[in-house]
Amino acid sequence: MENTLLNTQELLNDLKDEIISNRRYLHQHPELSFEEKETSSFIETKLIEYGFEQIEHYGKYGLVGRLKGNLPGPTVALRADFDALPIQDQKDTPYKSKVDGKMHACGHDGHTAALLGVSKVLKQVEDQLKGNVLVLFQPAEEKPPGGAKFMIEDGVLDEVDVIFGAHLDTSSPVGTVSVGSGYQMAAADHFKIEIKGQGGHGAYPHQTVDSIVIGTTVVNSLQQIVSRKVNPQQAAVVTVGTFHAGQAFNVIPDSVVIEGTVRTFEEDVQNLVEQEIHAISTGIAQSFGAEATVTYEKGYPSLYNHVNETEIVREAVSEIFGENVRPMKSTMGAEDFAFYLKKTPGSFFKVGARNQDPKTQFPHHHPSFDFDEEALINTGKSFLAILNKYVF
Amino acid sequence: MENTLLNTQELLNDLKDEIISNRRYLHQHPELSFEEKETSSFIETKLIEYGFEQIEHYGKYGLVGRLKGNLPGPTVALRADFDALPIQDQKDTPYKSKVDGKMHACGHDGHTAALLGVSKVLKQVEDQLKGNVLVLFQPAEEKPPGGAKFMIEDGVLDEVDVIFGAHLDTSSPVGTVSVGSGYQMAAADHFKIEIKGQGGHGAYPHQTVDSIVIGTTVVNSLQQIVSRKVNPQQAAVVTVGTFHAGQAFNVIPDSVVIEGTVRTFEEDVQNLVEQEIHAISTGIAQSFGAEATVTYEKGYPSLYNHVNETEIVREAVSEIFGENVRPMKSTMGAEDFAFYLKKTPGSFFKVGARNQDPKTQFPHHHPSFDFDEEALINTGKSFLAILNKYVF
Amino acid sequence: MENTLLNTQELLNDLKDEIISNRRYLHQHPELSFEEKETSSFIETKLIEYGFEQIEHYGKYGLVGRLKGNLPGPTVALRADFDALPIQDQKDTPYKSKVDGKMHACGHDGHTAALLGVSKVLKQVEDQLKGNVLVLFQPAEEKPPGGAKFMIEDGVLDEVDVIFGAHLDTSSPVGTVSVGSGYQMAAADHFKIEIKGQGGHGAYPHQTVDSIVIGTTVVNSLQQIVSRKVNPQQAAVVTVGTFHAGQAFNVIPDSVVIEGTVRTFEEDVQNLVEQEIHAISTGIAQSFGAEATVTYEKGYPSLYNHVNETEIVREAVSEIFGENVRPMKSTMGAEDFAFYLKKTPGSFFKVGARNQDPKTQFPHHHPSFDFDEEALINTGKSFLAILNKYVF
Amino acid sequence: MENTLLNTQELLNDLKDEIISNRRYLHQHPELSFEEKETSSFIETKLIEYGFEQIEHYGKYGLVGRLKGNLPGPTVALRADFDALPIQDQKDTPYKSKVDGKMHACGHDGHTAALLGVSKVLKQVEDQLKGNVLVLFQPAEEKPPGGAKFMIEDGVLDEVDVIFGAHLDTSSPVGTVSVGSGYQMAAADHFKIEIKGQGGHGAYPHQTVDSIVIGTTVVNSLQQIVSRKVNPQQAAVVTVGTFHAGQAFNVIPDSVVIEGTVRTFEEDVQNLVEQEIHAISTGIAQSFGAEATVTYEKGYPSLYNHVNETEIVREAVSEIFGENVRPMKSTMGAEDFAFYLKKTPGSFFKVGARNQDPKTQFPHHHPSFDFDEEALINTGKSFLAILNKYVF
Repeated sequence: MENTLLNTQELLNDLKDEIISNRRYLHQHPELSFEEKETSSFIETKLIEYGFEQIEHYGKYGLVGRLKGNLPGPTVALRADFDALPIQDQKDTPYKSKVDGKMHACGHDGHTAALLGVSKVLKQVEDQLKGNVLVLFQPAEEKPPGGAKFMIEDGVLDEVDVIFGAHLDTSSPVGTVSVGSGYQMAAADHFKIEIKGQGGHGAYPHQTVDSIVIGTTVVNSLQQIVSRKVNPQQAAVVTVGTFHAGQAFNVIPDSVVIEGTVRTFEEDVQNLVEQEIHAISTGIAQSFGAEATVTYEKGYPSLYNHVNETEIVREAVSEIFGENVRPMKSTMGAEDFAFYLKKTPGSFFKVGARNQDPKTQFPHHHPSFDFDEEALINTGKSFLAILNKYVF
Repeated sequence: MENTLLNTQELLNDLKDEIISNRRYLHQHPELSFEEKETSSFIETKLIEYGFEQIEHYGKYGLVGRLKGNLPGPTVALRADFDALPIQDQKDTPYKSKVDGKMHACGHDGHTAALLGVSKVLKQVEDQLKGNVLVLFQPAEEKPPGGAKFMIEDGVLDEVDVIFGAHLDTSSPVGTVSVGSGYQMAAADHFKIEIKGQGGHGAYPHQTVDSIVIGTTVVNSLQQIVSRKVNPQQAAVVTVGTFHAGQAFNVIPDSVVIEGTVRTFEEDVQNLVEQEIHAISTGIAQSFGAEATVTYEKGYPSLYNHVNETEIVREAVSEIFGENVRPMKSTMGAEDFAFYLKKTPGSFFKVGARNQDPKTQFPHHHPSFDFDEEALINTGKSFLAILNKYVF
Repeated sequence: MENTLLNTQELLNDLKDEIISNRRYLHQHPELSFEEKETSSFIETKLIEYGFEQIEHYGKYGLVGRLKGNLPGPTVALRADFDALPIQDQKDTPYKSKVDGKMHACGHDGHTAALLGVSKVLKQVEDQLKGNVLVLFQPAEEKPPGGAKFMIEDGVLDEVDVIFGAHLDTSSPVGTVSVGSGYQMAAADHFKIEIKGQGGHGAYPHQTVDSIVIGTTVVNSLQQIVSRKVNPQQAAVVTVGTFHAGQAFNVIPDSVVIEGTVRTFEEDVQNLVEQEIHAISTGIAQSFGAEATVTYEKGYPSLYNHVNETEIVREAVSEIFGENVRPMKSTMGAEDFAFYLKKTPGSFFKVGARNQDPKTQFPHHHPSFDFDEEALINTGKSFLAILNKYVF
Repeated sequence: MENTLLNTQELLNDLKDEIISNRRYLHQHPELSFEEKETSSFIETKLIEYGFEQIEHYGKYGLVGRLKGNLPGPTVALRADFDALPIQDQKDTPYKSKVDGKMHACGHDGHTAALLGVSKVLKQVEDQLKGNVLVLFQPAEEKPPGGAKFMIEDGVLDEVDVIFGAHLDTSSPVGTVSVGSGYQMAAADHFKIEIKGQGGHGAYPHQTVDSIVIGTTVVNSLQQIVSRKVNPQQAAVVTVGTFHAGQAFNVIPDSVVIEGTVRTFEEDVQNLVEQEIHAISTGIAQSFGAEATVTYEKGYPSLYNHVNETEIVREAVSEIFGENVRPMKSTMGAEDFAFYLKKTPGSFFKVGARNQDPKTQFPHHHPSFDFDEEALINTGKSFLAILNKYVF
């Protein structure tokens, strides 16, 4: 075992140039969520080059390479996402985006390059596997309903026992890995409230049902969900992101449209918030003689890292990174890896990616986003160390 | 006719000292609404002294002296009120209140003294009357449900064709009389909203239904009745006067009690406001899982001066005060003379009572309230001039 | 005098067909405010045809025909407006609008046709005038800042002693005229509030200054201006007509833009409301760490009919319409005739225009708006009757 | 060591009857916070009886018994509180409260009885101590500013290296102990907002500055602190517990008084909330022409269990209770043990106290509150196990 681990780590080190080269190629050729045709082809070509025989397809552009051990054992999936964002690349590097208005500003190019490296290593040691490994390349993480959902619907998890995913993280130094069990990312839902009053001339409010003032009363009342209804020790966010009403300053409009997002961890909190948005919106509207229609769409669920699998990740990466393994900080952000963890045990962890150079310190989704490419190797090493606990 | 008018005006002038003396006696012996036992006795004694034979009693302390003409004609009622207020007299005059914490701070002492003077004059010319006159002394104008209501229920208006009342007015100069038809004073209603939530520890709001925040949302939402629901050209006031909730800063109370007043002129506006207070309070409470109980009590109705009778008042007082007859300014204040005008034609007018002396310029209900006593004679003259149009 | 009146009334009667023909022509050829080039030409042509020699031009398309009496006397202006509205004509008549999306839906075609008729009559009796008459044709009444303002700036009122205007009124029966002094139409102002917070991701509200919730708090707080700050016996309207914020449901926008209208009669109320919109918007924004910028533009002032001139109108039209002269009902609507009355004595009155036919009973600005054309003659007769009091 | 632990545990077991007897005596004689004169005497008498020579006094009624080992080592403090609550005892037991309206409804009688038992045991093994032990009996935990503050000001912690405290817990089964590091209980602050407007008659709101509507706007706006200003992953509570304004339904009062509590863990959140209450209250009041005065008093700080000391507690109690040692659940409730932990390392833990009998299942502060007295022994055993790690 120990020998295999050392061996795979070394094999990965040897691929450093190729991994970086793959990442830079992807970085220069970003594709938006659900449009990643060329990226998917690139990955497939590489996998075939590495010796994978039958590449499986899931969802529109999802790909899986399957490694089958000679000895029995669990089936472990490793996932990387590969979509880019509608952001104009503002970096000044040779490998900057070649596509106007599109950019890998969240590091998914890195996730994919790292997992390709791992795939190549694994193909070299496939005969030693006690069990199976799926290298799972997923499109469309950035855009609800997300790519994970469709790959799962197509059965990608059917024979998987445990799944792991990683995310580069420019808020932590390269060399660190953040690991934590429990709720780590939030469920991200969408709501829309349409309030129908009765429009009329602004000089005669008594002849109308003023949808704007009713709408503003609803928005103010929604504040009480977080301030009064939700347990203060359970995080929740109710944000109104758009409020649109009216076309003329002196005409009271018939209706108002309000849209927003809800972020929660626990399902009971999520359900409570949904229920309160309904009750408050329709109740307030009725109080003033108007009518509210609420639609509530659940998006990515909250990401829950399973306790046992997370402990295994912690042990595994500690063997490589020692003291630099940190507790993960949960966030109200969302990630569609959560869908896998709703069905299958597993864990999602973060790999530090900043160094002293300010160019590696921009937040994710920033038009100057970049990272220390050593983090690619660290991501790959982490995956291999985890596999070491399961299939070597 | 003209002769009778001149004659009665002179007769009244001759009573000036007695009228002032009566007013000062009453001023020194104020009694609160519904407690005016001694005041009622004093009036009755005076009327008997003036030759009235059978004093009629209505309500608890209401009195009527009846003058019957020899010739047929209409029955005209003249009304004065006689209750005082729970205010500490702060004047420095020989005739200041002798009763601690009670005071004639609205001029009702003057109304009564003036009508007593008129009564004495009328008794002297009773045989010339073409019709009948009731001098109507009413208790408890200051305190809902008011004395008028009970006198009417006891039948005081049963044979009355037309009724007039006057109010001293320290916002207008002595010598002026203010007359106007239509709505002149507002209906004054009382509402009470009790919001029942579910109390609990202030540290655990999610285990409660927070009646305070629901109550404050209700009060804020009530503002929309006047701002959005009522025709901007129809006056309305919705005032919350009390809001009481909670006994400990760190405990969320079970319930909130809110009380207030509504002021309106037109009945449709009054009904709209009542209905909206119900709808908004119960609707908002339900929106947050609480329950609101609303009680709405109609108090004095709005005072509507009848057009024809007001024209007669204007003509009558113009003969005495000429150019000093002014248009009356309507107000959101209330007056239970309104009850008489709901059943019987008539008009209510105001008699200027301030002079250059600042002592006569305090607003009504002020602890230093006083007035120019010439206004008493002007009040009496106005009544006699009106009678001149009906029964002389 | 009386003879002249009878004479002019008859002369006008004789022009009935021509007046109706002119109105229908205008009705078929509507032009929007500030774009009335052809309408202005049409009027000028007609005036020249009627014998006016030098047509004066004011503002962009404003016209005046001047009649000079042989005898000295006052200069009286009669005003008609002539712009149409961006409304699709939905009537089914031979004279319906020929222009897509434009329509005379407020009766200004009628005002102009009637005043053209009056102009032709006056030209025939010009030598009998004791004084002068201006027939004033104004563009752009419907669209602030309105045409009146520019005609006044160009000096149209410089030698005018008194001015009168009329409006057709489909809420009153043909044959009636409504006359009243004092405030009859409201000042109509525009305000815009921009609230600048700090945008950010909807999942992290604490990293933002949430302009939407601050904006909704401002709108709710503005309700207190009418409900608490303005004298309930002085009409005021504060209406928010547009509220726009945000482009994505999960992003908190940087800023919110709110626009609305204020309606008042008295200037002190208008100034109070302006001041309170400033104080509340900037104060609330600051309370939450944002910044509000308020722009307040005074539009048409309130229309105040001068007392003496209105009495003359009442007398004059009563000679023609007798008992059918009614008190005018004031309204929170606006009219730029108010600008003339701020500088020059005068009065604005309404001429009943509905009959039993439902086609004449639509409200102004309705896509099926039409009226009983007898009202055109009544408008003309009213103008002539008023002139009779001044210059005949 | 191991021997000493076994020995002390056995010694404590032998005192079971006495511990229960002491607890029942205290239960029958409750005294309110800052009034615990007899309770303090009782404890002192017992300590002297157990062989303590010089009892030290801190604060008003605080007591410390000091044990000095022969060998050098750390000084460890063990704390019990001893005040009761203003609650009417509704239990039916021989040992129910003998004092009307007062009751040990939170288990402080048990804390004291347990620590007295521990004191007696320690006196028997004093010569084996490697270091010193303080048995610290504290009054007034229930009532801010609390007894801990005054004992600390009097120097009770001056020579203490580490301190531990325990609380009985009827929400957990007897036999369990709950242990956890980090923030476990909230800071509990008090705020008071006085809004001064200008009172007046309810019929004339425009002549007033309506403090009630301003006050309700403030309360509604305070909701935004938790919903928008605080990081959703950091718990905070802003509760308004009292809102009092006005004495008559038809009079607008001059002022409103609002009081409430704030609960937070982290100091930066606490300071943010304090600052926002100031900014929102004064800003909203000013927006409407009123003035707000805010007083904010920090109460008990948040209770932070030190990581190392908590690990020692966990190890120590696990030796006794094995698998029944649980992670502690943090709560927004407050506890003045927090003051000790601000100055000195240590940890606070909870000892399960309910059994199958419903009588032991009431929540703390309930008038029927009681517990399984085996929990007293468990509390004592826990203290002795912890001491075993430090001074044996």
